[in-house]
Amino acid sequence: MTIRITRLDTTQPDFDSALMQILVFEASEDESIDRVAADIIADVRKRGDAAVLEYTNRFDRLTETAMASLEIPVESCLAALNNLPPASRAALQVAADRVRVYHEHQREACGGSGYTYTDEHGSLLGQKITPLDKVGIYVPGGKAAYPSSVLMNAIPAQVAGVPEIIMVVPTPDGIRNELVMAAAGLSGVNRIFAIGGAQAVAALAYGTETIPAVDKIVGPGNAFVAAAKRRVFGQVGIDMIAGPSEILVLCDGTTNPDWIAMDLFSQAEHDELAQSILVCPDTAYLDQVEASIARLLPQMRRQEIIRTSLTNRGALIKAKNMEEVCAIANRIAPEHLEVSTENPERWLDLLRHAGAIFLGRFTSEALGDYCAGPNHVLPTSRTARFSSPLGVYDFQKRSSIIRVSEEGAQILGKTALELAEGEGLEAHAKSAAYRMKKD
Amino acid sequence: MTIRITRLDTTQPDFDSALMQILVFEASEDESIDRVAADIIADVRKRGDAAVLEYTNRFDRLTETAMASLEIPVESCLAALNNLPPASRAALQVAADRVRVYHEHQREACGGSGYTYTDEHGSLLGQKITPLDKVGIYVPGGKAAYPSSVLMNAIPAQVAGVPEIIMVVPTPDGIRNELVMAAAGLSGVNRIFAIGGAQAVAALAYGTETIPAVDKIVGPGNAFVAAAKRRVFGQVGIDMIAGPSEILVLCDGTTNPDWIAMDLFSQAEHDELAQSILVCPDTAYLDQVEASIARLLPQMRRQEIIRTSLTNRGALIKAKNMEEVCAIANRIAPEHLEVSTENPERWLDLLRHAGAIFLGRFTSEALGDYCAGPNHVLPTSRTARFSSPLGVYDFQKRSSIIRVSEEGAQILGKTALELAEGEGLEAHAKSAAYRMKKD
Repeated sequence: MTIRITRLDTTQPDFDSALMQILVFEASEDESIDRVAADIIADVRKRGDAAVLEYTNRFDRLTETAMASLEIPVESCLAALNNLPPASRAALQVAADRVRVYHEHQREACGGSGYTYTDEHGSLLGQKITPLDKVGIYVPGGKAAYPSSVLMNAIPAQVAGVPEIIMVVPTPDGIRNELVMAAAGLSGVNRIFAIGGAQAVAALAYGTETIPAVDKIVGPGNAFVAAAKRRVFGQVGIDMIAGPSEILVLCDGTTNPDWIAMDLFSQAEHDELAQSILVCPDTAYLDQVEASIARLLPQMRRQEIIRTSLTNRGALIKAKNMEEVCAIANRIAPEHLEVSTENPERWLDLLRHAGAIFLGRFTSEALGDYCAGPNHVLPTSRTARFSSPLGVYDFQKRSSIIRVSEEGAQILGKTALELAEGEGLEAHAKSAAYRMKKD
Repeated sequence: MTIRITRLDTTQPDFDSALMQILVFEASEDESIDRVAADIIADVRKRGDAAVLEYTNRFDRLTETAMASLEIPVESCLAALNNLPPASRAALQVAADRVRVYHEHQREACGGSGYTYTDEHGSLLGQKITPLDKVGIYVPGGKAAYPSSVLMNAIPAQVAGVPEIIMVVPTPDGIRNELVMAAAGLSGVNRIFAIGGAQAVAALAYGTETIPAVDKIVGPGNAFVAAAKRRVFGQVGIDMIAGPSEILVLCDGTTNPDWIAMDLFSQAEHDELAQSILVCPDTAYLDQVEASIARLLPQMRRQEIIRTSLTNRGALIKAKNMEEVCAIANRIAPEHLEVSTENPERWLDLLRHAGAIFLGRFTSEALGDYCAGPNHVLPTSRTARFSSPLGVYDFQKRSSIIRVSEEGAQILGKTALELAEGEGLEAHAKSAAYRMKKD
């Protein structure tokens, strides 16, 4: 029942390959899963409601005879909200309010409803930013059904101004999670269907008699859901395909080691594939955290999951100094990055890739997961190198605005003519030339 | 040699289905193309340079013996730029300058390098916006090699601050397009390789001995390139997978019909699958445009392509009034939307879905394609419902910033504790509780 966590030192000769070995996680691209998802999508496109109903009855062990009975009325979500114990309800409300305020700030800071400027010839240029018309939110059922995820997916869509938010959530054996329903009631979801899997993704992407076709599908799911999302990409927009959750803690050795141990646990408890890594320039401190882990682990209810996760995918890494600690963070590009140091802002400029950066020892990742305000849907598996937290911008799209003045058409026309001829596109050239005064 | 374009009227009983029939375009998801792309990717991952070299020699009919000889030195692009005829060079420079200014405006209007705010407990919240480290730009070779596309892909990346921009462009039979090389020289591309196809996408996604692995791949390509991009999505970021180009012209019947005919040609001349549609409330005006088309078409060098495109995929649509015209535009969600009317701004609020909106009769789409400033890489095939023009934001990613104050940790801790317990995540709860003062 002891625990053995990988210890690495940046000075060991095989450090690079040892680190890579711990980081590597290749989503199993199972051809058979992809095949099943493709078949289900084709069937739902062909047979609509009948197909969705059939798959739902089969996979979720239900006996419904009409799609209508799989719609969960919004009123019942509001009832679920009203029936919560007061403390739960208050906590959900605080979280929802803070998430809303944060995303309202984000909307305004990232272009609002658009921008324009006028150039030296009086031509108007810019972009118009508008919400998507319809969005689908996939919420997993069963043990990974988290009310906080409903808030984090639905509220940014609502803040963006999406007029129709449609949630799907499988209800295996007909069991509905009351907290999830309450969260839906609180966050402006417009319609809810008790369906899941590739069939739910297909229904949202192409529409059926009962389920409206949406413009984008967001939210995590199992391998079939991920395969289906990849397949419908293009027909609709999708968010990133999420891998296991990760935390990287950077520490200067001045935080209570129990706190850091518990932060590592908080990621590891999600599932066996989750990854928790600590990097620190102080060997003695790493020993202290290792001791805290050993002491605290037996008290945890989810100790088996935590043990497996830390043993297989965790690591305690000794670096030369804080600069090297930051360089390792950029290589890992983690989903969650805790900077548990004195004056954490000092290191911020050195940190380039991370889904979310938690600064200072009071900023435990758990606060960000629930109620600090920022979104907890974050890029995993090193995708923070090129992707971003879920945000209002995921529920908006932009249209360029161009209004060329008569004067501008004369001047731009010459350039367009020249370039169009260079590319052999005569109609482009003539279309510009028609707007130029003959002289 | 006459031309027959579909005429529709919104009052005809089968209008909806007739419109859908014209719009429908399903990218051929050819399983065999996907299979070939998957095999090439696996081979490049396994054998690196050797595989890339082999495929390049085979597909582009070359006889190179080392990857190094497929690298095109940036100096030779600068030489190509210097060797251009002065008028070409000046036009390319004007276009590059205007595209740069536009995207600089965009960068500042869309969040700059980030934003933060402080909440009522002194906690800091916001986002940090940073450029991607490395970006790959795919530029098609052969007849569809457009220097303007090099500018439109590379300049936003450069404005975003991407330190390493790597361009790939196939050179079938070893032929290099001097205008494309010059455009690369002008727009801050750092390295260029004369490779293409799925092998180029694989090399950029996974890296080889010679070709650096990038974080995102953008740019259009053939069916193999599209299949490869879809496959590497997740390993790297990708832009949208582009379909045939489209223009929708909304007209109140007051623009010179020859101008509108030429605007429709300018899209149709791209290729046989391109789509040009005009919607207008005035039947007599539609007749005039049809007459202009018939008269002007025989003068066009690319008349065969234009005729095929207009015959198979074009349409002239009579609507009841301008409000209905705008409603049709939203259903079509076109890549390019020309609003060729008096007071075009009047209709802007009604237009929700379009890649770019060209306002007023002097704003021919061709000006936007080359030098107005906005990006010409735009969402096609109705994806403007959920996606946006290529922009600076495609070459940036965001990291949430959270710095919870000691006071904030007490207050947020209570909410996090309650929600974490509701979700059965004990370590999350304890990690929040550790930061709370015991009282």
